[in-house]
Amino acid sequence: MNEAQGGGRSRVVILGGGFAGVYTAKHLGRLLEGRTDVEVELLAEENYFVFQPLLPEVAAGGIAATHVVNPIRELVPSARFRCCKVVSVDTEHRTVRVSQGEGLRLIDVPYDHLVFCLGKVTDFSAMPGVAEHAFAMKDLADAFKLRNHVVRCLELADIEADPEQKQALLTFVVAGGGFSGVETIGELAELVARSLKYFPRIRPQEILFKLVHAQATILPEMPQQLGVAARRILERRGVEMILSSRVRAASRERVYLHDGRVLATRTFVCTVGAAPNPIVKDTIAKAGFDEATLGGRRIGVFATDATLACAGKPGYWAVGDCAGIPNPNGTGLCPPTAQFAIREAKTCARNIVASIDGQSKTSFAFKALGILASLGQRSAVAELFGVKLTGFLAWFAWRTIYLMKLPGFARRLRVALDWTLDLFFPRDITQLQVFHHEHLHVHHYEPGEAIVREGQVGREFYLIVKGEVQVEAPGGGAAVAQLGPREVFGEKALLEDTHRTATVRASSPVDVLVMSRADFRSMVENLPILKEYFTRLLAERLPGAMSRMSQTASDVRPSMSST
Amino acid sequence: MNEAQGGGRSRVVILGGGFAGVYTAKHLGRLLEGRTDVEVELLAEENYFVFQPLLPEVAAGGIAATHVVNPIRELVPSARFRCCKVVSVDTEHRTVRVSQGEGLRLIDVPYDHLVFCLGKVTDFSAMPGVAEHAFAMKDLADAFKLRNHVVRCLELADIEADPEQKQALLTFVVAGGGFSGVETIGELAELVARSLKYFPRIRPQEILFKLVHAQATILPEMPQQLGVAARRILERRGVEMILSSRVRAASRERVYLHDGRVLATRTFVCTVGAAPNPIVKDTIAKAGFDEATLGGRRIGVFATDATLACAGKPGYWAVGDCAGIPNPNGTGLCPPTAQFAIREAKTCARNIVASIDGQSKTSFAFKALGILASLGQRSAVAELFGVKLTGFLAWFAWRTIYLMKLPGFARRLRVALDWTLDLFFPRDITQLQVFHHEHLHVHHYEPGEAIVREGQVGREFYLIVKGEVQVEAPGGGAAVAQLGPREVFGEKALLEDTHRTATVRASSPVDVLVMSRADFRSMVENLPILKEYFTRLLAERLPGAMSRMSQTASDVRPSMSST
Repeated sequence: MNEAQGGGRSRVVILGGGFAGVYTAKHLGRLLEGRTDVEVELLAEENYFVFQPLLPEVAAGGIAATHVVNPIRELVPSARFRCCKVVSVDTEHRTVRVSQGEGLRLIDVPYDHLVFCLGKVTDFSAMPGVAEHAFAMKDLADAFKLRNHVVRCLELADIEADPEQKQALLTFVVAGGGFSGVETIGELAELVARSLKYFPRIRPQEILFKLVHAQATILPEMPQQLGVAARRILERRGVEMILSSRVRAASRERVYLHDGRVLATRTFVCTVGAAPNPIVKDTIAKAGFDEATLGGRRIGVFATDATLACAGKPGYWAVGDCAGIPNPNGTGLCPPTAQFAIREAKTCARNIVASIDGQSKTSFAFKALGILASLGQRSAVAELFGVKLTGFLAWFAWRTIYLMKLPGFARRLRVALDWTLDLFFPRDITQLQVFHHEHLHVHHYEPGEAIVREGQVGREFYLIVKGEVQVEAPGGGAAVAQLGPREVFGEKALLEDTHRTATVRASSPVDVLVMSRADFRSMVENLPILKEYFTRLLAERLPGAMSRMSQTASDVRPSMSST
Repeated sequence: MNEAQGGGRSRVVILGGGFAGVYTAKHLGRLLEGRTDVEVELLAEENYFVFQPLLPEVAAGGIAATHVVNPIRELVPSARFRCCKVVSVDTEHRTVRVSQGEGLRLIDVPYDHLVFCLGKVTDFSAMPGVAEHAFAMKDLADAFKLRNHVVRCLELADIEADPEQKQALLTFVVAGGGFSGVETIGELAELVARSLKYFPRIRPQEILFKLVHAQATILPEMPQQLGVAARRILERRGVEMILSSRVRAASRERVYLHDGRVLATRTFVCTVGAAPNPIVKDTIAKAGFDEATLGGRRIGVFATDATLACAGKPGYWAVGDCAGIPNPNGTGLCPPTAQFAIREAKTCARNIVASIDGQSKTSFAFKALGILASLGQRSAVAELFGVKLTGFLAWFAWRTIYLMKLPGFARRLRVALDWTLDLFFPRDITQLQVFHHEHLHVHHYEPGEAIVREGQVGREFYLIVKGEVQVEAPGGGAAVAQLGPREVFGEKALLEDTHRTATVRASSPVDVLVMSRADFRSMVENLPILKEYFTRLLAERLPGAMSRMSQTASDVRPSMSST
């Protein structure tokens, strides 16, 4: 359905609810106050705005998750808000197709001016296993899950008898030495250090932090001197730097680097892998928008002029990370930071109104005031108005400036209180497993890794999607069988929680579909064709098993003896 | 493995991390300070303690979720803590079998004294569909999910065109007129009332709240006069009372009452259905413990004497909701409230130490100080030291007393701050979908309900587990097919996001297994047997479909036109 246009009113539609989108809408609201001839509508997938620079603090439990988000409706009361997913842009009819609501109805939203504020997306596809096994640090869910995972690792390490497993539980690897990676590892180090007193069976020297970075210096966005200082501070706190190295692949228990190194870990945070937004790529390709270039390479974002207008496309604007905007200082493009997005949004709003009113547009002019990176434990590095700071003073400046930048007075107050309390009270180590979910997921393994280990209790079942595995003889040793795509293993878990009777090891890079017994049983019991198949399979591999197969899941009891 | 016992030390093991367990451990810690001859270990499934009385406030966004939970390790630093699931109690060898860690290893934990603090569990099995479709109000995850769900309903209602769907999105049903139900509906009413200003297309008169209660007066735990007062206050605020009525079943869009009434709603909170803990039932049945009775009926909890000792079983104790403890006032058993659990814990701790030291035990003596129920919007009902209060004064007393009872100074401060800010700032309407999960789940439908509707966009696939459905002719009208257990429908969703071409309606109570396309595709594409089956099925039902079946999921595009 094509929604009715308001009689003759100009419609400005903003795509995206990040810094660029929310600030463009805010400024438009101010500039258009009292006017009824222009309607502004903001389209975003979530109904809240996330103050991303503080996500690492949320991940480390310094700030409550809800305190770094603001409802968009509250931040921008002057604009209409639509919670939806953008599907495509139709420049011919000047409509945006979105899917919204429960039935994911497709709706065409008309516009006169369209502002792209879609940012970038994360794309791990070049690194096998990373999408499945790494934590990103992009949205609130990432930070929330990471915090709970780290606390869970401490809980598990505290009761883990196997030293190798314990070490993996206490090793934390972050890829990417930019702001996000550096702040995340600094904050995690603080969380772990402050929580250790509650875990009597974990010794501080068992904790390992490793930062993997492609270049020789961390924080490439900052003056080199500060990158070096940040490195020194983090190293003093026990963070190992793995520089000039990149991640090749990840599995459930390991991170593989291009130089051949393998890091055994259960916590891998990947802050690299930013990729162009598919809607932006699509619009460039299909509607003939200019694509920005960097060093001659096309970079998947809109080329704009200094007024934030998309080159040669009247009525189209782009702000923030999905825009290639000439840097007012003459050196290439504006950096993809919140600081720039907020200022760009102001200029863009002004130019949209000027363009509706037939007035002349202004060029974007802004010089970054400074640049800061927190390192956790009351330490940071910063350059402010040309002055370089490290340590406590930089950290104090960082907190003050971020607090001032946080939108909404109530949130600012809450974060200030969180920070104040954090100085006096222990860090929160509640492990919130808000959703206990059982579902299908894919795990990736690299050659030589054990997927199931003899002797472990198994309650999952595996279906090979890609690659090959070998089944070892009981008691260790030679391979007795080789399984490939579309073959299954771990099927004894369909019957009960049993010890694994053999180790199964990846013999090539392998993707397996992992299913809980509950899920699998509900499939098998309800699809006769599957039941037949597994009856046959189990009869071949486990004679006598099928009589037990007909038991219901609730009949199953642990068969383990107390030895 | 049977963990080594500490040379000759008495081991007190506490099962459960609720009020009873945590306070027993706290008091034992105090009484045993400086002694090394007794070791206390607390076993709980979560690593945190939830202050349950404030869950309705969390559900309504008045308090941040993390502020009503405390890490158990922090609350009870004197005790060992083990994050695990209790599997069974072996009274012969005096060990508790638990499963713990990632591999869910089975461990036998030895004890000299065992304290049962396991509480009750929720059991919705007598009401079909309730387990699948209702929100409970038992733990933090329930409150967290409910809050986000309510905000989501407002977001969806704001853009819903169908008036019937919109009404269901704006109808909130709570079953159970006890503390939990009454406080939940009061708090939800406040959340919705305070959020409406952000949803311009929702009118206040569209909002419906309904409280279903089995008796004629709500709050049966309180003096009748206060129940009547609470009812009047809630009714004035627009809550409809459905008294002397009970829930029979629930589906995704409806609540069915025993008296035949049907309530169309998308939000159903069920606070009834407390059932005995299975470990307690098991131990009573297998180890010959005495079971408490109420009015001659066995109630699935341990019978204890006035010293909290399990009758006739030296070294076994029971505290809180899993214990039937003679009420010191002579009228039956102690009520299952936090107030009593905390006092029982103190007596129990004292008696355990007395029993280790060979001294005489004391009897539990406590008279409830008062009883309070919050109704939201600065109103409550209370009886304190025999004085009955309603309205603001009761609400003020309620806040003050609960704040004092909240364990941990930091949490108390945080909740006090939450409450203070809540007086001045709008309620938080961020809709945190922390986990976007796709997995298998079961939906229940009652006869006549539409499972899929012609014209909707479908991206799920259904497998009938139980009951029958009928497929209606396109354009509405006669049934053209009847499907029963193990048959499937909605299979076009395997191909793409398409409009449903027919309505499918339950013709008996029906349970269906719902699968997302992504999950289903990963199964079908990797299990040749399934692929074959669906190839045949789709060829029968949708000639020409299979050529498209071989596309990968990422190729699929919406086929919907903008009409």
